[in-house]
Amino acid sequence: MSLIELEYDVTGMTCGHCEGSVRAEVSAIEGVKTVDVSAKTGRLKVTAEGALSDQTVLDAVDEAGYKAVRA
Amino acid sequence: MSLIELEYDVTGMTCGHCEGSVRAEVSAIEGVKTVDVSAKTGRLKVTAEGALSDQTVLDAVDEAGYKAVRA
Repeated sequence: MSLIELEYDVTGMTCGHCEGSVRAEVSAIEGVKTVDVSAKTGRLKVTAEGALSDQTVLDAVDEAGYKAVRA
Repeated sequence: MSLIELEYDVTGMTCGHCEGSVRAEVSAIEGVKTVDVSAKTGRLKVTAEGALSDQTVLDAVDEAGYKAVRA
């Protein structure tokens, strides 16, 4: 399987708890290998094996209570 | 038992998760009846039956990862 990396800009995160909420939801997506998220920059980097749809990531961020767009 | 109310100013809270962390720690103090905390204003109001020491409240806020002073 090839490894893909996608980046997103997330709005509304203010602290480590917020990062943790996003990390937990995105990490739970099937195939996701690493999640790097920063409340300071708003940047979310996700690596996954095989396919990973934007909508799945956007929905996970929404579930955590924040909004994301592809960077 | 008499009901007492103490107020504190907490620094560092940025969101509802932060409020929740403070609320959880302070609510766990013996005798505490209500905890009202706002990340927006930084104000923490605690009511308790009987005695409640400042240090116990300050320690609980510290445990949650924030700093408080009596208002």
